[in-house]
Amino acid sequence: MSEQEDNFSRLRDANFTIIGLGLMGGSLGLALKQRGIGRRVWGVNRRETVIDRAVELGAIDGGTTDAVAGVADADIVVLATPVRTIIDLLQQIGPHLKAGCLVMDLGSTKSDVMKAMMCLPAGAEPVGGHPMCGKEVAGIWAAEASLYEGAIFPLTPLERTSPAALALAETLVERIGATPVVIDARRHDRLVAAISHLPYLTAVMLVSAAAEVAAEDALVWPLAASGFRDTSRLAASDVTMMHDILVTNREHIGEMLQRYCRHLDRLIALVENGQEDELRETLGQAWQDRYSVISDQ
Amino acid sequence: MSEQEDNFSRLRDANFTIIGLGLMGGSLGLALKQRGIGRRVWGVNRRETVIDRAVELGAIDGGTTDAVAGVADADIVVLATPVRTIIDLLQQIGPHLKAGCLVMDLGSTKSDVMKAMMCLPAGAEPVGGHPMCGKEVAGIWAAEASLYEGAIFPLTPLERTSPAALALAETLVERIGATPVVIDARRHDRLVAAISHLPYLTAVMLVSAAAEVAAEDALVWPLAASGFRDTSRLAASDVTMMHDILVTNREHIGEMLQRYCRHLDRLIALVENGQEDELRETLGQAWQDRYSVISDQ
Repeated sequence: MSEQEDNFSRLRDANFTIIGLGLMGGSLGLALKQRGIGRRVWGVNRRETVIDRAVELGAIDGGTTDAVAGVADADIVVLATPVRTIIDLLQQIGPHLKAGCLVMDLGSTKSDVMKAMMCLPAGAEPVGGHPMCGKEVAGIWAAEASLYEGAIFPLTPLERTSPAALALAETLVERIGATPVVIDARRHDRLVAAISHLPYLTAVMLVSAAAEVAAEDALVWPLAASGFRDTSRLAASDVTMMHDILVTNREHIGEMLQRYCRHLDRLIALVENGQEDELRETLGQAWQDRYSVISDQ
Repeated sequence: MSEQEDNFSRLRDANFTIIGLGLMGGSLGLALKQRGIGRRVWGVNRRETVIDRAVELGAIDGGTTDAVAGVADADIVVLATPVRTIIDLLQQIGPHLKAGCLVMDLGSTKSDVMKAMMCLPAGAEPVGGHPMCGKEVAGIWAAEASLYEGAIFPLTPLERTSPAALALAETLVERIGATPVVIDARRHDRLVAAISHLPYLTAVMLVSAAAEVAAEDALVWPLAASGFRDTSRLAASDVTMMHDILVTNREHIGEMLQRYCRHLDRLIALVENGQEDELRETLGQAWQDRYSVISDQ
């Protein structure tokens, strides 16, 4: 049997436990169940009503509010909560994991999560993960089996992670329709600071600035059209998730904010000094970059 | 006959001339033709191929590259080019307008356009306009008859504009599916600086910052997901259109950039000093504002 066939059957026969049944965890459960992956998919969530809903949707076979009990029999555990909760949960569940258990997470920053994964017992196989997909609507009610399809899915193993465990994680990612990219946790955190955390903060600042203007002239909101809606969309992201991201990725976000600040200072100077040629060049370069690297649907 | 019925028949029997057959002008032509508004719809464009395409699409009945010839017989002229071209064209066509001609424009800033409209001959009826709709794809090839449907459409008359001409412009706006809002040009320009021009510039700066990071680590672009795509979408706007906007609305854009700069400075301090409670409050307030005022489809 090839390694891939072996991993296919390991996934098919594995007991999965997903901790956190929000958009990401719920969608993972749906993707596993609809593809027939896993002997059983168990769910852990603080709220009973969410577990009930996940069962109704067919995202899990059953669940519990007790993370320790939830992982007792698991071959593969996936943590799908905000980052700081993942770190707390890793401490709680560590001593109760089965030997050889693959422990993955879907957290948006990786360095602090990998530090916590280093403290897992020797028998556990840790692989960090961060699917580059999502929606601004949180919760199990927004879950979709297709959420991961087409997404880039960075994986951040530790040195101690066995090649077999990493290969299993990669196969799992491929089986739910995503593309795994193995990457160092620190490099990951710096890159997502640029293309995910900074955009979130620009959306927050845009809304804050427009709200100030709205306090003086309420017509500002009715005038806001699709351009404002798209540019500010990320400000509607889950606040707890984003707060954890900002706190656990301070260094790289600080770098990106400083970088952005230099662009802002330069732009203010170009506008105020009426430097039309330089302004046009800046706009043209951004148009070119955006056009050549990002495809809109 | 009521004023509205009178305006309906005036619109039906009017000779229209649209100057500039890009996304906005082309879509206006399609909207007029498909609704049976206008005895004839004439188009003016620098490029013959664009005129030919507009005729093929059914956006105009015919056209010319000569703006002066194009307006000779027009009852309603609509200028749909970038703002500084509108200002140049107003000077050119002014002496050749028929007495009583309604002169509108679709330019994105209004103060400088209205100054140019003040110089039109006494017989002309100037009404500035700015439909709050659009796409990041420019040109007649992207035109749609439905572009104006549901859009807010600010109208900025001059003191000299007759109530009858303003009422005719309002009826025209309603007939193509948009909602007219009569507003002072300066107030318009300040509000759109907040909800349109500032968002454009944040998108430009985001792309500029990410491109810097990409020069060091090319993986940044493949990782960019829907959040970056939406937040940076406006950077793909037509550069000439946006450059004209920035140059003709410098004062208000300067105000908004300074305002935004204060939010950025504050955010940098919160992140760098690890002021978690204040950070969370800022994110929560933006979430609340975004949620309560903007509805995503």
